[in-house]
Amino acid sequence: MKLLDTIDDPKQLHHLSRQQLIQLCGELRERIIETVSRNGGHLASNLGVVELTVALHSVLNSPTDKLIWDVGHQAYAHKLLTGRRDRFHTLRQYKGISGFPARHESVYDPFTVGHSSTSISAALGYALARDRLGLDYNVVAVVGDGALTGGLAFEALNHAGHLNTQLMVVLNDNEMSIARNVGAIAQYLTRLRTDPALSRTREEVELLLGRLPAIGDSMLRVTDRMKKLVKQLVVPGMLFEELGFTYVGPVDGHDVALMQTVFRDGLRRKGPVLVHVITQKGKGYGPSEANPVFYHGTAPQQTADPGKEVPTYSQVFGAEMVSLAQKYDKLVAITAAMPDGTGLTEFRQRFPNRFFDVGIAEQHAVTLAAGLAAGGMKPVVAVYSTFLQRAFDQIVHDVCLPRLPVVFAVDRAGLVGEDGPTHHGVFDLSYLRMIPNLRIMAPKDSRELVEMLHLALDRQECAAIRYPRGGVHDEILKELGVNRHTPVEFARAEVIWQGKDITFVAVGSMVVSALQAAAKLRRRGLDVGVVNARWVKPLDEEVILQLAAETRWIVTLEENVLAGGFGSAVLEVLQEAGLLSQVGIKCLGLPDRFIEHGDNTRLLQDAGLDPQQIAEKVMNLFQGDEALVELVTEHR
Amino acid sequence: MKLLDTIDDPKQLHHLSRQQLIQLCGELRERIIETVSRNGGHLASNLGVVELTVALHSVLNSPTDKLIWDVGHQAYAHKLLTGRRDRFHTLRQYKGISGFPARHESVYDPFTVGHSSTSISAALGYALARDRLGLDYNVVAVVGDGALTGGLAFEALNHAGHLNTQLMVVLNDNEMSIARNVGAIAQYLTRLRTDPALSRTREEVELLLGRLPAIGDSMLRVTDRMKKLVKQLVVPGMLFEELGFTYVGPVDGHDVALMQTVFRDGLRRKGPVLVHVITQKGKGYGPSEANPVFYHGTAPQQTADPGKEVPTYSQVFGAEMVSLAQKYDKLVAITAAMPDGTGLTEFRQRFPNRFFDVGIAEQHAVTLAAGLAAGGMKPVVAVYSTFLQRAFDQIVHDVCLPRLPVVFAVDRAGLVGEDGPTHHGVFDLSYLRMIPNLRIMAPKDSRELVEMLHLALDRQECAAIRYPRGGVHDEILKELGVNRHTPVEFARAEVIWQGKDITFVAVGSMVVSALQAAAKLRRRGLDVGVVNARWVKPLDEEVILQLAAETRWIVTLEENVLAGGFGSAVLEVLQEAGLLSQVGIKCLGLPDRFIEHGDNTRLLQDAGLDPQQIAEKVMNLFQGDEALVELVTEHR
Repeated sequence: MKLLDTIDDPKQLHHLSRQQLIQLCGELRERIIETVSRNGGHLASNLGVVELTVALHSVLNSPTDKLIWDVGHQAYAHKLLTGRRDRFHTLRQYKGISGFPARHESVYDPFTVGHSSTSISAALGYALARDRLGLDYNVVAVVGDGALTGGLAFEALNHAGHLNTQLMVVLNDNEMSIARNVGAIAQYLTRLRTDPALSRTREEVELLLGRLPAIGDSMLRVTDRMKKLVKQLVVPGMLFEELGFTYVGPVDGHDVALMQTVFRDGLRRKGPVLVHVITQKGKGYGPSEANPVFYHGTAPQQTADPGKEVPTYSQVFGAEMVSLAQKYDKLVAITAAMPDGTGLTEFRQRFPNRFFDVGIAEQHAVTLAAGLAAGGMKPVVAVYSTFLQRAFDQIVHDVCLPRLPVVFAVDRAGLVGEDGPTHHGVFDLSYLRMIPNLRIMAPKDSRELVEMLHLALDRQECAAIRYPRGGVHDEILKELGVNRHTPVEFARAEVIWQGKDITFVAVGSMVVSALQAAAKLRRRGLDVGVVNARWVKPLDEEVILQLAAETRWIVTLEENVLAGGFGSAVLEVLQEAGLLSQVGIKCLGLPDRFIEHGDNTRLLQDAGLDPQQIAEKVMNLFQGDEALVELVTEHR
Repeated sequence: MKLLDTIDDPKQLHHLSRQQLIQLCGELRERIIETVSRNGGHLASNLGVVELTVALHSVLNSPTDKLIWDVGHQAYAHKLLTGRRDRFHTLRQYKGISGFPARHESVYDPFTVGHSSTSISAALGYALARDRLGLDYNVVAVVGDGALTGGLAFEALNHAGHLNTQLMVVLNDNEMSIARNVGAIAQYLTRLRTDPALSRTREEVELLLGRLPAIGDSMLRVTDRMKKLVKQLVVPGMLFEELGFTYVGPVDGHDVALMQTVFRDGLRRKGPVLVHVITQKGKGYGPSEANPVFYHGTAPQQTADPGKEVPTYSQVFGAEMVSLAQKYDKLVAITAAMPDGTGLTEFRQRFPNRFFDVGIAEQHAVTLAAGLAAGGMKPVVAVYSTFLQRAFDQIVHDVCLPRLPVVFAVDRAGLVGEDGPTHHGVFDLSYLRMIPNLRIMAPKDSRELVEMLHLALDRQECAAIRYPRGGVHDEILKELGVNRHTPVEFARAEVIWQGKDITFVAVGSMVVSALQAAAKLRRRGLDVGVVNARWVKPLDEEVILQLAAETRWIVTLEENVLAGGFGSAVLEVLQEAGLLSQVGIKCLGLPDRFIEHGDNTRLLQDAGLDPQQIAEKVMNLFQGDEALVELVTEHR
C-alpha cells in the first residue's frame, strides 16, 4: 500500500517523518504523471510544486487555513492530498474533477481560479475578512513568477504591503510563466537567484562593519547610519521590501525540510511576508524537465487523431503571419505569454525584432499595440479569447475610440474542452460586438482565416478575428459538399446553400454544425439553406434582410453565449428594419450559465448544440408554424 | 499683450528666457483658472503641472517628439501651448475642445486618453515603432503617482525596463491620485521625497569608504565589493532601478530651469529613464491648494441649479451605506480612488476599518471583494461604470463564476456630459448582461436605489446596481404624476401606466423620458403605457410576455448602447418565447459610435433620445402599422 493512499486529510502530513514526506513526494509525482499521460493536463507546472505542496500542507491547518494557488494549474498534488485522491483519475474529464481549484469542488479550494495573478488579491481579501471577524487563521497565496508580471498581482502587492496584515505570499519561481518569462521582474529574480555575492553579502557587510575603526564622534554617527542603511539595503529582495513585504529567500523549492522551517517562520510574522522559492518546472520527469513549454498543457492521449495531420487554426495563423511579415515590413506580433499556443513560434524565431511577448499582461499587450499602431506599425495581437477579457477596457479606449489599426487574433474562441469554465472563450462576440468602430470576423476554415487576416491588415482598421481551438474544418467541409470558395469581402456573408423553409446563419465553427443539421433536415423534406456569416460586425445586413423576405425561418447558430451575441445582432438588425414580424427567427447558442469542463462534443450536447439536437429544435419550431408542418407532411 | 497670446507653436518656448518662461507660467495659470471657473473641469491637477508642461515643451520638439499625458486631465497648459489657445474658452463644451488629449483634435496629442495608467504602454509602443522604423524622436510619458498604482502602468514599466529602449517617464508626484494616494508605492515615494538622509547618503558613503583602512588583501576585496554594492544600492529610487529604469530625482516640479536641465539630461540617455518630479496639486490658486480633492473636477458654474438642493444618486448611495453598516456588521465598502465621487466620504470617516480605497486599481478592487466575500464579509464595490470596464474579467471569473456575494454600485452609468467619450458609462448593461449568475438592476429614483441595495445584500448574490451621474429624479417623477411607490421585488418590473397601443419599457434614468414621451403621445390620442424595468437581469419575463399579448408596440428605452443592451435582452426573451411576430418592438438607446463631450441634454438630443424625439419616433412606427394609424385618426 502506498503512503499516498492513506492520506485522506492533509493534516496527516503534520505527523509524517521527513523520510515519509520525501516518499510521499515520489508517489505524488508518479500519480500525476500517470494521470496526466492518460487524461492530459498541465504536467510540468504540477511536477514542479510537489515538494512545495507537501511542505505547505505539513505546516498548514487546511481548510481552516486558506491556501490559494494562483492560476490554479499547479494544484494537482494539492488535490491528491485533500480528499480527492479517489476521483483523481477523472481529472479534467466530463463530470470529473476540475484541472483547477474550484470552490464548489472542495472546501480545501478557498478560491476558484483559472486566470493568472488573482491570488494575492484574493488572499488579502481573506486576511482582511479574518481580521475584521476576529478569526485566527493563516492565508497563503502561491504565485508563479510569470503571474507576477500581471498588473493585478502588482496592484495587490502594493495594497497588501501598505495594509500590513498577516499574509504569506509564496513566490514559486520556476523562471517560466508558460513560455520563458519576460520583463524586468524576471531579470531581477534571476539576479536574486544567481548572484552568489548577493546572498553572501549580508554576512560580509556585518564582518566589515565590525572591523570599522571609530574615528571620532562625527564619524561614528556616519558609521551608525551607514550600518543601518547597508543592513537595510543589502537585503536581497529589496524590490519586495520596498513594497512593504518582508522578503525571505531564495529557498530551494525541492527541499521539504528547509521549506517547512521557512514557512513556519513566515507564518509567525505579523505583516506580509514573501517567501521566494525556486522550483524546477517538470521536476522528476525527464521529458518534461527538458521541454517544459511542450509539457505545460497536454491533451489526453486518446483524443489524438492517429494518422491524420490536420493543422490547427493557430498553426494556420502562425504560418500566415510569417508570410505576411515578408509582405508588410511594418507588421509586428504581440502575445501575452503565449508565443507557442498562438502559433507564433516560427514568427518569433524569424523576426525577433518584430515580436513582443509581454508576459501575462494582456492590458499592456493591447495598449502597447495601440502605441505601436499610432507610431506607424501594423500590430497583430494574438491572444486567447478568455484572456482578452482582461483587456476589455483597453480595446475600447486605446484602440477603438481613436480607431487605431490593431488586429486581434482571438484564438481558442468557443468551448475549449478540458480546461473548463475559466478557459472557454464564449463571451467575446458579446463583449466585442458592443464596441464602436471594431470589425469582427469568424472564419469557417483555414482559407477564410488567411483572407480575413489579409483584409484586416489591408483595410487598416481595428479588427478582431475569432477562431476556435483545434484543427481546421477544411476536410469536413469538403465531406459535406462545400467545395467552392468565395473570397472574403468586407461585411459580406457567404451563402452556401439557399433554402426557402429554413436558413441557418452560422458563425465560424458552427457552419459545420449548420451544414450537418441542414443535411438531416433536407432528408426530412425541408428546403434548408446555410449562410456562413463571416462578419459579426458589421453584419451583412443585405443578406439578412433578403433572408427575411425569402426564407420562412432564420436560425442563428454560434458558439458564444446567446446574451448579446451574434443572434442578438441579427435580432437587432431585423428590429431596426421592422421585419421581425415577417420572418420566424430562432437563436441557438450557449446558455446563460458557466459551462463545465470535459470533452467539447459532450459539452456541446449538453448545451443542445450538436447537429442532431439542432435539427430537432428546428423541427419543433414547426409546431407553431402550420404552413410548414403541412409542407413537411406533403413532402413525406 | 500677454506672452501666452504670442505662442502658436510650442517650439517658440525654446527661445524664451528663464524670466519669460516664469511669466508664461503665471499667464497659463490665470487662463486655466478663468476658463475652469466658467466651464468646469479639472483644476487642481492642471494647475500643478504648469511649470512641468512649460519645461517639457521648452526642451521637446513636438509634435515630432511624442508627449503623452497619462489620464489626460492634466493637459490644459499643454493645449494652451499647442495651437488651441483661441479655442480654449470652449473647453469641455459641446463641439468645443476636449478636456482630455485626443488624437483627432491635434497632432500634438499623440494618444487619446481618459482612463489611467496607459501612458507608459503607449509611449513604449511609440518608442518601439521609432526604433523599428529607424526614426529619431523622443518619447515622453507623464504619469501621476496615482496612475502608478494601476497594474497596467506596472506591466508597462516591467516590459520597458526589460527592453532597454530610449524612453523618458516623468513621474508627476503630487501625493494624490484623485483622493489621497494609497499603497506601498505611495509610501515609498513619500520616503524618497522626505528622507533627507537618503539624498545625502551617497556622498557620505563615498566619504566613509574613502577613509576605510585597507587591512590585507582579502579585506580589500571585500571593501571593493562593498563599495560597488553600496554605490549600487544607495541610489534613491532603487525600486525603479530594479525595474530597469535609470532613476533621477526627486526634482522640484515648480522650478522650470532645474527641470529643463534634468529633462535635457534624461533625453540624452540611451535606455529608459524615470524622472521623479514633485508638484503641488492646485499650485498657485489658494482654494485649490487647500482642497485639491474638491477642486479635482468641478462642474461648470452655470449648470449649478440655484435654490434647489437635489441630492445626487451618489449621495443617496453613500448615506444608505452608512445606515446599512449599522445593520450589517459584515458590510465593507471598496472603492478605486473614488471615495468622494462615489459618496463614501462619511462611510470612510465613520467606519475606517470597513473601508478600502485600493487606489486606481479596479481589477484588484473586484478580486479583493471576491476574497472578502469568500471570507464571510458583505463587500460593496463602488465604482464608475466606465472604470468598471477595467475589471470585466475579474467580475466574470472571480465573482460570478463562484457566485460570491459581491454588490457593485455602478455610478455614473449613462452619459456623463463634459468628460466625454472616455468617461460615458454607456456599455455596462451590455458587458454585464452577458455574465451568468449576475443580477443587474437600475433604479428610477432614490428610493429604488436604496431598496435595490438592501435586496442585493439580503439575497447574498452577485449583483450590480447602475445609476446615473447627477441628481435623483424623485421630484420630476412626482411632477409627472408618479406618486405611488411599489416596493422593489426580485425580477419584477413596475408597471407605472398601462397602455394598449404602445408601452415603453424603460431602464433607470430613461423612465422619466418615457413618461414625458408618453404624455406627449397621450395628448395625440394614443393609449400609452410605461413600465419601469428595474431589472435588466433577470428580466421580468412575465411582464414582457404579458405586454406582447396586451399592447401593440413595445418600445424599449435605455441610456446604453443598443448593441447587446437592454433592448436586445427584451428581443431575446420574445424570440425565446416565439412571440416576435405577435407584437411590434422598437429599441431606442445609444447608437453604435463613441459619444462626444458636452451637455448631456444636448448629447441625448444628438442621439435622438429626448422626449420629443422619442415621441416622434414612436409616431413614425405607425406608418407601417395601419390599424394604429386608423385608431389615431379616429381618436383625433
